[in-house]
Amino acid sequence: MTEQQTKAIEKVQEIDKEVTLISHIGATISWDQETYMPEQGVEEKSEQSSLLSRLAHDHMAGSTLGNALATLGADEKLLGAEALGNVTSKLPKGLSQTQKALVRKVYRNHFREAKIPEDLVMELSQTGTIAQSVWAKARNAGDFASFQPYLEKLVDLKRREADVVGYEDHPYDALLDTYEPGMKTAQVTQVFKDLRAALVPLVKAIAAAPQVDDSFLQRTYPLASQEAFGLRVLKDLGYDMDRGRMDVTAHPFTTSLGRDDVRITTRYAENFFKTGIFSIIHEAGHGLYELGFGPEIRGSSLADGTSLGVHESQSRTWENMIGRSRPFWNHYLPLLKTYFPGVLDDLGPEAFYRGINKVEPSFIRVEADEVTYSLHIMLRFFLETKLMEGSIKVKDLPDLWRAESRDLLGIDPDHVSSGVLQDVHWSFGLFGYFPTYSLGNIIGAQFYQVIEKDLGGSKALGDLVGSANFEPILSWMRTHIHQYGAAKTAGELLSDITGGGLDAKPFVNYLTAKYTEVYGL
Amino acid sequence: MTEQQTKAIEKVQEIDKEVTLISHIGATISWDQETYMPEQGVEEKSEQSSLLSRLAHDHMAGSTLGNALATLGADEKLLGAEALGNVTSKLPKGLSQTQKALVRKVYRNHFREAKIPEDLVMELSQTGTIAQSVWAKARNAGDFASFQPYLEKLVDLKRREADVVGYEDHPYDALLDTYEPGMKTAQVTQVFKDLRAALVPLVKAIAAAPQVDDSFLQRTYPLASQEAFGLRVLKDLGYDMDRGRMDVTAHPFTTSLGRDDVRITTRYAENFFKTGIFSIIHEAGHGLYELGFGPEIRGSSLADGTSLGVHESQSRTWENMIGRSRPFWNHYLPLLKTYFPGVLDDLGPEAFYRGINKVEPSFIRVEADEVTYSLHIMLRFFLETKLMEGSIKVKDLPDLWRAESRDLLGIDPDHVSSGVLQDVHWSFGLFGYFPTYSLGNIIGAQFYQVIEKDLGGSKALGDLVGSANFEPILSWMRTHIHQYGAAKTAGELLSDITGGGLDAKPFVNYLTAKYTEVYGL
Repeated sequence: MTEQQTKAIEKVQEIDKEVTLISHIGATISWDQETYMPEQGVEEKSEQSSLLSRLAHDHMAGSTLGNALATLGADEKLLGAEALGNVTSKLPKGLSQTQKALVRKVYRNHFREAKIPEDLVMELSQTGTIAQSVWAKARNAGDFASFQPYLEKLVDLKRREADVVGYEDHPYDALLDTYEPGMKTAQVTQVFKDLRAALVPLVKAIAAAPQVDDSFLQRTYPLASQEAFGLRVLKDLGYDMDRGRMDVTAHPFTTSLGRDDVRITTRYAENFFKTGIFSIIHEAGHGLYELGFGPEIRGSSLADGTSLGVHESQSRTWENMIGRSRPFWNHYLPLLKTYFPGVLDDLGPEAFYRGINKVEPSFIRVEADEVTYSLHIMLRFFLETKLMEGSIKVKDLPDLWRAESRDLLGIDPDHVSSGVLQDVHWSFGLFGYFPTYSLGNIIGAQFYQVIEKDLGGSKALGDLVGSANFEPILSWMRTHIHQYGAAKTAGELLSDITGGGLDAKPFVNYLTAKYTEVYGL
Repeated sequence: MTEQQTKAIEKVQEIDKEVTLISHIGATISWDQETYMPEQGVEEKSEQSSLLSRLAHDHMAGSTLGNALATLGADEKLLGAEALGNVTSKLPKGLSQTQKALVRKVYRNHFREAKIPEDLVMELSQTGTIAQSVWAKARNAGDFASFQPYLEKLVDLKRREADVVGYEDHPYDALLDTYEPGMKTAQVTQVFKDLRAALVPLVKAIAAAPQVDDSFLQRTYPLASQEAFGLRVLKDLGYDMDRGRMDVTAHPFTTSLGRDDVRITTRYAENFFKTGIFSIIHEAGHGLYELGFGPEIRGSSLADGTSLGVHESQSRTWENMIGRSRPFWNHYLPLLKTYFPGVLDDLGPEAFYRGINKVEPSFIRVEADEVTYSLHIMLRFFLETKLMEGSIKVKDLPDLWRAESRDLLGIDPDHVSSGVLQDVHWSFGLFGYFPTYSLGNIIGAQFYQVIEKDLGGSKALGDLVGSANFEPILSWMRTHIHQYGAAKTAGELLSDITGGGLDAKPFVNYLTAKYTEVYGL
C-alpha cells in the first residue's frame, strides 16, 4: 500500500470510530428517554438527538471521508453490497479482510448520506413529525381521509428518495437496501410467494381444528416474580449482566450504549403471562447477537447487525424455535411453578406448551402468533411495493387492505383502526422495513436447520434445550454469525452457512411439523 | 446594531446553545455511568466523554465564535467577569441585558479555552490520570513519597496554566477564577481570616463542653423507608419530580441532563441515619437552584450556577440552616417516627435536634460538621495558595498539614492517609476549587439574613420552616438568585441582595448563636 492509502484507511477508521461513539451516545439519550427520564425532559431530548444525528451525518457525508474512500479506490459499485470477493479484488491488497468489509460498509453509508439532498431529508423529517400526530388522531377517530394527504406526501417523498439513490429493477429496492443491504425486491417477492402457498392452507386447517385452551395465561402473575423469573432465564441463555441490563419500557427494545453495554427492555402484564417472558427471550436474542461481535470489529460500524432480517432471525430463533418449544417448557415449567406458588398447580407441560402456541387469525400484527405473523407482513409488503411503483393509489389502501386480509388471513377488518391505520411506521415514512420481520423468521429457520445438524440432530438439540444447556447453541451462533457483525452481508452468511440463498422451505417445514402436531391436523 | 452585529450575536447564541446541548449530553453519559451502567461499560464511557469534551472545546475555542465575539466588541477586559455595568457600556446598545451577560460569559470561556495551549491541556489530563491511580495506592499504603513527584508535576503544570491565563495580583487568582468568576485570592484570604478568628475559639469552647448524645443515629433504619421519607421531604421542599428524579450512587451529586431534567443522587447507610437524609436535602438545594433558572436563560450557558460558591450556598442553606434547624425537626420528627415504627419512640425533638448537630473536630473533611468544616477548607486554601506562589515545597506538605491541623482544629493527623492524602482532588490538578465550599457557607448565611428580614424576621421564618411551608423561601430564592443563573456574578448577587460584598459576619453570627445554645456555652 502507498503511504497515501495507509493514511486513507486510518482516516476511514478514525471517522468511523467517532461515528460509532456518537451512535452509542445517541443510544444512551434514547434509552434514558424510554426508561428513567422525568416527563418534562422530552423536549430537549429530541434536540439532543437531532444534534447528534447532524454530527454523525456531517462526519459520514463529509468530503474528508469521501476523499479517503476515493484514495482507497471505493466507487459506486460497492453501493450494492457487492460480494466481498469482488470488493476484495478492487481495494488495495494491503488491507485486511475486515478493513475491506469496513470500507464497503462505510462507503455505502457515505454514498447514501451524501447522495440524498438535505432538503429531502428535512422535508421527510418534518412531514413525518406532523404526519405521526395526524395518524394518531386518525387512528383514534377511525378516519383514514384525514391521514390520506400526509401519506400521499410521504409516498411521494420516498419515491423521490428511491430515485436519487438509484436502483436497477424496482424503486422499492432502493428503500429495502437500507435495512437489507444487497437484498432485492424480486427475491423477497419470490420467497413470500412460497411462504404464502404453504401458510394460507395451514392457517385454514388450524382454524377448522378444535382450539387449544390458553386461559391459564390470564391468571394473576405478580410483576416482581415475572421479573425474577425472566432474569433467571436471561442468565441461563448466557446473557452477560456485566455487559448489559434489563429495564421496563412501554415497548420492548434492544440497544447498544457501548461495545460492552448492550441493554434490553421488556414490559409485563399481570394478567397475561406471555407478554413479559417472550419479550425477554426475544430481546435477549437481539442482545446476544450484539454482545457477540468479534474483537476485530468492536468499536467500529461493523459491530452492528448486518441486516434487520438477520437481527430478527436471532430474536425469533430464541423466542419461537427455542422459547416456544416443548423441551424448553418441560424444563422451565416446574421452575416457573416455584415463582408463582399455587397459580399453575393444575397445569402439565403438555397443556402449557399447547397454550403458549395457540394460533388464531386476528386483525393486529403485533398480537399475532408465529404462523399468522408472516401473513400480516406479506399484506404490507404487497401494498408497499405497489405504492412505490405507483401502481396503486393511497386513497384505495383501506379497501385493498381488507381484500388482502380476507385472502391471506380469512378475516375482514371492517374498521380502519384495526386495518390500514394500525401501524405507526408509514406515518414517518418507514417503507421497506416491514419485510425484515418475516425475513427474520425465514433466515432463522434456515440457520436453525444447520444448527440442528451440526449439534447432532433434532433429538440431541432437544436434549440441550430440555436441560437449559444453551451454551453449544449460542457458541455456534457466535462462531458462524455473531462475530462477523456487518462484515458479512445476509447473503454471505446464508451462502457460507447453508451453501445456498434465501429459502422459505425450512421455515415452512418447521411450522407445518409443529402445528400439525399441536392441532392434530 | 449593524447587520453584522445582529448576525454575530445570533452566531454566539447558536454556538452557545450547541455547547449547552453537548454539556447536557455529557451529563447524561456521566449520570448513566454512576447509576445504571453495567460494569464493563466503563471503558467506552470515558471515550464518549472525551469525544464530547473535544466537540465542546472545538466549538468554544474556535475562530467562528472568536470572530463573532470580536464583531460585538468583546475584548480581554471582559475576562475578569467585569461588572455588567461596565460590560454594558462596551457592547452594542441593541443587545438586551441577558445577551450582554451571555457575551460576557461566553467570552470568558472562549478566552480561557483558546488561550491554554492544547499540549498543556493534554499534559494535565494525562498526568492527572496517572497521578490519580498513584494517589489511590499511596493513600492506601500511607506513602506520601510515591505520590510526591506526581503532585510536584501537577503543581508545576497548574502554575504554568496560571501564567498563560494571566493574573494581576496572585497566580491563584487565575485558578480560582474558573470556579468563582471575578473573585480574588485577597478577598478570600481576608474573609477566611475573619472566619478563623471566630471559629477556632468556638470549636475549643465546644470541645470543652459536655458532648451531646447522637447514638440514636446508629440504630437500624431500613433503606426503603429512608428513601420513602427522603422523597417525601424532597416533595415538601418543592422539588418538581416531573423535571427531576433521585437515584442512588456511591457519591451524591446533582446534574442537569437537560433544561427540564435536573437529577439528584444520594446514598444511604442503614446504621447511620444522617448520611441519607442530609445528602438528599443538600443535593435538593443544588437541584432547586438549577430548576429555577429563568425562561430567558434556559438552554444557554447562562443556565448554570454563577459560581461554585453560590451553588454551594444554596445546598448548604437547605441542608444546614433549614434542614438542621429546630423548627424543621419539630415538624418532621413525628412524621419520621411513622416511617420507622418503634425505632425512635424514646426520642424527643430536643434530643434529636442536638444529636444531629453534634460538633467534633476530626481528621476527615467529608465527615466534618458545619462548624469545623470550614477549618478543613482553610487548611487546604492556605497550602494551595502557598504552592501556587511557590513559597512552600510539595515535599514539606505532610508536616505543614499537621501543623495547620493542630492550629486550626487542635488535632494532629499523624498518618498521611487521614492527613495530606485524604482528598482525591489535587491528584487530578484541582486547585482553586476547595475554597468554594466555605464560600458557600459564608454567602449562604449572607443571603439567609436577608431572607429572614424579607420574610418577617426570625420567628416568622421559623414558623414557615416549622410548618414545612417552604414555598415563600424558595420563591424568594428564585426571585433574587435562581432566575439569573450565571447572568449575575456572585459579586453582583451579593451587591444586589445585601448591598455589600463578601462578609463572614452573618455566618459567624449564625454558628455562634446556634452552638452557644446547643452546647450551653
